[in-house]
Amino acid sequence: MLHLVGLGLADETDITVKGLEIVKKAERVYLEAYTSILLVEKEKLEAFYGRPVIVADRELVETGSDDILKDAETVDVAFLVVGDPFGATTHTDLVLRARELGIKTNTVPNASIMSGIGCTGLQLYNFGQTVSMVFFTETWKPSSFYDRVKENAQFGLHTLVLLDIKVKEQSLENMARGRKIYEPPRYMTVAQCAQQMLETEEERKEEVYRPVSLAIGAARVGALDQKLVVGTLEELSKVDMGRPLHSLVLLGKRAHDLERDYIREFAIDTESFDNAWKANNYGSIS
Amino acid sequence: MLHLVGLGLADETDITVKGLEIVKKAERVYLEAYTSILLVEKEKLEAFYGRPVIVADRELVETGSDDILKDAETVDVAFLVVGDPFGATTHTDLVLRARELGIKTNTVPNASIMSGIGCTGLQLYNFGQTVSMVFFTETWKPSSFYDRVKENAQFGLHTLVLLDIKVKEQSLENMARGRKIYEPPRYMTVAQCAQQMLETEEERKEEVYRPVSLAIGAARVGALDQKLVVGTLEELSKVDMGRPLHSLVLLGKRAHDLERDYIREFAIDTESFDNAWKANNYGSIS
Repeated sequence: MLHLVGLGLADETDITVKGLEIVKKAERVYLEAYTSILLVEKEKLEAFYGRPVIVADRELVETGSDDILKDAETVDVAFLVVGDPFGATTHTDLVLRARELGIKTNTVPNASIMSGIGCTGLQLYNFGQTVSMVFFTETWKPSSFYDRVKENAQFGLHTLVLLDIKVKEQSLENMARGRKIYEPPRYMTVAQCAQQMLETEEERKEEVYRPVSLAIGAARVGALDQKLVVGTLEELSKVDMGRPLHSLVLLGKRAHDLERDYIREFAIDTESFDNAWKANNYGSIS
Repeated sequence: MLHLVGLGLADETDITVKGLEIVKKAERVYLEAYTSILLVEKEKLEAFYGRPVIVADRELVETGSDDILKDAETVDVAFLVVGDPFGATTHTDLVLRARELGIKTNTVPNASIMSGIGCTGLQLYNFGQTVSMVFFTETWKPSSFYDRVKENAQFGLHTLVLLDIKVKEQSLENMARGRKIYEPPRYMTVAQCAQQMLETEEERKEEVYRPVSLAIGAARVGALDQKLVVGTLEELSKVDMGRPLHSLVLLGKRAHDLERDYIREFAIDTESFDNAWKANNYGSIS
């Protein structure tokens, strides 16, 4: 059987008791390590599980899935995913492939940033669709996220923005030359995300949000050093939230008073927060 | 310190290792038992934790929160919540009260149905806002959910519908007479939800969805007997999905082929599924 086991958000102890039992008994244990990362090293996981873990990069999962699934008709294979196993499209592919091969699957859910973001105090009911923000380059600044944010904003909904990570990426030059040399990993920060959002607004000019729109930066959700910061996009574009992973929530106009009371605690500057709350008419849509 | 500990979705082993350590060490352990339920009895939790658990009903949490927080400046109090601790508004209230009293808080995230619903194979990115469906009565059939579904449908997004549970409710008569006699718990089924959705559409007539619209019924997500069923609302209004908890997802038009391939496996009738897919133009919005 193929077991897809969610690892949760922060460290090795965020696995569920059910998940840990499966990991301990499985014949082989793979760790998906490219759509998200845990805040601890692989070695720490191995020590905690008392067994070796095979790192599964994008190449292995997307083109070598039959290696992962080898003999899984008869033995147990655990495929560990940071967050919840169904956070990323890739893993439905893996299950579809298992189905084709007649291999049974079992899923062990865990916390995902999509629900964990509730730690901000914003109500999950008030969120629209989630969007992703990729690293802009000189020549590639995709603004499809902006259209989605616009849809959410139209109904006053919050938008969770998931930030790009680049793990085991090749430079264009190394890729062209077929050299398997990888760049150091990069994780987008809240500040970079806010900057790119403002850059896109300047480009598109549809007033989906403004430099004075309120947003929440969330870093290391679920970890002991979890950090939440509330400010205008302008303020967040300069904030330093420390080590990864970061996420951002753009506040929707449907925000209500209980949400305001909760997030005000995390304001970079409470006076600026109160002003922005009034100036943007938060709470005006119900 | 007040620890809000998520229990996940199904049974006692869905708690995280981190959460379990907190429960074992805490001075007092409360179980929130009215916004959702675990699929096992309290006694099973107590045996697993090796200690007593105090059931916290709505009354205790909403009016007796200071009892829960008693001495939490100096001792550890664990407040267990099915799913993720921030799934329900009530718990932000509790944290706000703790803040007022100068009590520190710590959250242990876990799987929530809002992310666990990814087990359907539908992409979490394609979901709009989540709605709730309450039990209709002869005189009270609130259709606010319909407005939200309409907003989601406008952009082709899926809608997760959370189904009502009635735990420790009094009958009107007993409430009027001040008798603390409680009705047996009730949990809405997928079939009831589909019926109420169709009833509301008949009433509102805005064609937000139709009897031939596709939806997914999900029962006991995360449990060994998890069950997923795909069909038209008409078909789902007659389906028997067994014991609680149930949820429903109304499919959005932005659904893509990978999602179709994944959910087709769960179709009540694949021919009817294929026909409905075409007739409703799923996949037509991108």
